[in-house]
Amino acid sequence: MFKEITGGITAPKGFKAAGVKAGIKKSGKEDIAVIYSTVPASSAALFTTNAMAAPPVIVSRQAAAKGIARAVVVNSGCANASTGEQGMMDARAMAHMTASLLGIGVDEVLVASTGIIGVNLPMGRVAEGVKKAVAELSEEGHDKALQGIMTTDTFPKVCAYEFELDGVTARIAGIAKGAGMIHPNMATMLSFITTDAAVAHPVLQQALAEAVNLSFHMITVDGDTSTNDMISVIANSQAGNQTIDNAGSPAYRQLAAALRHVCTYLAQQVVRDGEGATKFLAITVKGAKDFADAKQAAMAVAKSPLVKTAFFGQDPNWGRIFCAVGYSGAQVDEQKIALVIGGLTIAANGVGASPDAQALQKVMAAKDIAVEIDLHVGSGEATVWTCDFSYEYIKINADYST
Amino acid sequence: MFKEITGGITAPKGFKAAGVKAGIKKSGKEDIAVIYSTVPASSAALFTTNAMAAPPVIVSRQAAAKGIARAVVVNSGCANASTGEQGMMDARAMAHMTASLLGIGVDEVLVASTGIIGVNLPMGRVAEGVKKAVAELSEEGHDKALQGIMTTDTFPKVCAYEFELDGVTARIAGIAKGAGMIHPNMATMLSFITTDAAVAHPVLQQALAEAVNLSFHMITVDGDTSTNDMISVIANSQAGNQTIDNAGSPAYRQLAAALRHVCTYLAQQVVRDGEGATKFLAITVKGAKDFADAKQAAMAVAKSPLVKTAFFGQDPNWGRIFCAVGYSGAQVDEQKIALVIGGLTIAANGVGASPDAQALQKVMAAKDIAVEIDLHVGSGEATVWTCDFSYEYIKINADYST
Repeated sequence: MFKEITGGITAPKGFKAAGVKAGIKKSGKEDIAVIYSTVPASSAALFTTNAMAAPPVIVSRQAAAKGIARAVVVNSGCANASTGEQGMMDARAMAHMTASLLGIGVDEVLVASTGIIGVNLPMGRVAEGVKKAVAELSEEGHDKALQGIMTTDTFPKVCAYEFELDGVTARIAGIAKGAGMIHPNMATMLSFITTDAAVAHPVLQQALAEAVNLSFHMITVDGDTSTNDMISVIANSQAGNQTIDNAGSPAYRQLAAALRHVCTYLAQQVVRDGEGATKFLAITVKGAKDFADAKQAAMAVAKSPLVKTAFFGQDPNWGRIFCAVGYSGAQVDEQKIALVIGGLTIAANGVGASPDAQALQKVMAAKDIAVEIDLHVGSGEATVWTCDFSYEYIKINADYST
Repeated sequence: MFKEITGGITAPKGFKAAGVKAGIKKSGKEDIAVIYSTVPASSAALFTTNAMAAPPVIVSRQAAAKGIARAVVVNSGCANASTGEQGMMDARAMAHMTASLLGIGVDEVLVASTGIIGVNLPMGRVAEGVKKAVAELSEEGHDKALQGIMTTDTFPKVCAYEFELDGVTARIAGIAKGAGMIHPNMATMLSFITTDAAVAHPVLQQALAEAVNLSFHMITVDGDTSTNDMISVIANSQAGNQTIDNAGSPAYRQLAAALRHVCTYLAQQVVRDGEGATKFLAITVKGAKDFADAKQAAMAVAKSPLVKTAFFGQDPNWGRIFCAVGYSGAQVDEQKIALVIGGLTIAANGVGASPDAQALQKVMAAKDIAVEIDLHVGSGEATVWTCDFSYEYIKINADYST
């Protein structure tokens, strides 16, 4: 259904990208990225719900409302957050200089920043970097653009696919950097998606929201929600399909499935790259009253430091999982709840089963572990992805800014 | 106002206690405790809100409703949680045997358990232990009773005071063991308070709820809420004051202040003994819309693993604190928020100040740190106490049951 292709974020037709070293990051690596559709496009975006949203988020939220963004300019190394009026001016300036260099409207540009909070952007370096990046835009610039949005990520997160859309072949691609919960201080989950499908803004926004609800909103590492989180999709109509403008159409479902596929892949990659993570945990709650209850219970388990440290220690300490379900607020009947880890029944009807000790040890030693909790009170189901808590997590986060 | 006295939980008149070794704990230490008023008393109690409340909580909640409890029987080493019908029978049996041995009604007995979840109580040992403890009840038994409720606590938590009550001298005392959030799996915060004041059940319940709301409900270590949490107070009228039966009376206020003093002391001790804790953090949010908003913001900061690891690393990473306030849901105006740590202004009007680097280093190196966030939008204020997250926390929790 989705055929992997090469070319990263510029795999869809009509996109160019660039990443340059502007001297914002101490490491000296790429720290300005530009992604650009050479033709007008429709767009959709979602932003952090944090009440202290950073200036770039405020500026982009405004631009995104029009749904005609075709360029994204991003810097890493400085979040431009908690920077007051100066921060707002800097974010606006970054959008304006990009628009001006590309010869497009300022409403066609989204701006994003990631890095340390409370420090002003070095605008001289930003200006030079943006100028250089725009000059270097090309179909081969996708790798450097990806480098430019990364902070403490230990591997790049990218995917690109071909898919059938209303009888034609379309392409969709996405890149992401570590989640706010994962890469604190450099505290941001950023993801940028491109597609050459033709989609009207309102339905593209709906498809993005649906995809994010089932992917990025289903991951957690330590429960923190950053000031700078942002995800956008730009759709530039170069695939040749008839413009999708009805969320009830078969073509909409094809596009929505492709968006969800990209978002799920990137969200899971973000969890796999969690700071100090040694395990990838898929926490499924089924038999819940409804989806909201299932998600609430799964999130409580996924967020519990006690559960996360137990998995790090390969300790099948199931009481902690039941305890988290119990305080989650989800409707439970203690006499019905069951737990299966890696296919082994650990508890049923609210009390412990007696799984084979050797089999259990093997399950707990795996890198990828499926945890399945059946509440047996309804038909709601949700899966949340998370990672464990290790010594390395403490180390990275205790030593970050000093 | 409150004069410290010796004698622990039996310092108030008319109380006896005992702690014995029944062989439930692997360590072989005291694991059954009984606290007993030699005369009829009124009582109040509060229990975990966890939907998977353990059988002892369910049994005690029923008994507590009458408000005439005068004895508490506690075991450590086994939580009797997630134990189904058998667990309910065992908890009831524990209450019944205690009542029978003391010659009092079963509604006069509260039962509590703490220790590993999902394992049945060894009832033969429990029965022998309860028998021995009742036989050993004395005014000198308070230390052993305190030992009997401890699990991974590294120090005992106890206080006893004399205070003036309506013209007479009354006494109040309390003991506690580590919070659910702190002592996972042995996952319970237990606290038992005795007083020789004369207080009618309904106003005693009100005073306890008020005290707990401003003490035990204002601490967090890792956000987990145990299946077994319980706090009770027994008031046996031996001080000679006129029975307090009106929450508007000056005597009520004296009693309520004493209860709050005991609860605050014990709650703070619980945080100080947090697993692996190296810092004691008092997070105050003021200038909030109301108390609820202030508490919500302070709790978000106190629970954030990013904030907690930063304090462990002595890293004045204030962006993480603002970020947590931002996602807390409390009403904020980013241009007004200010932050003071240990008396040093770190940020004002939403942007970073420039505190003296040496002074800041000294503040961050202290063991006790006061963090004060002023939202400048109202007059709500709340203080939450918490500790940092260290390597030791991960170690203790990853290795616990294996």
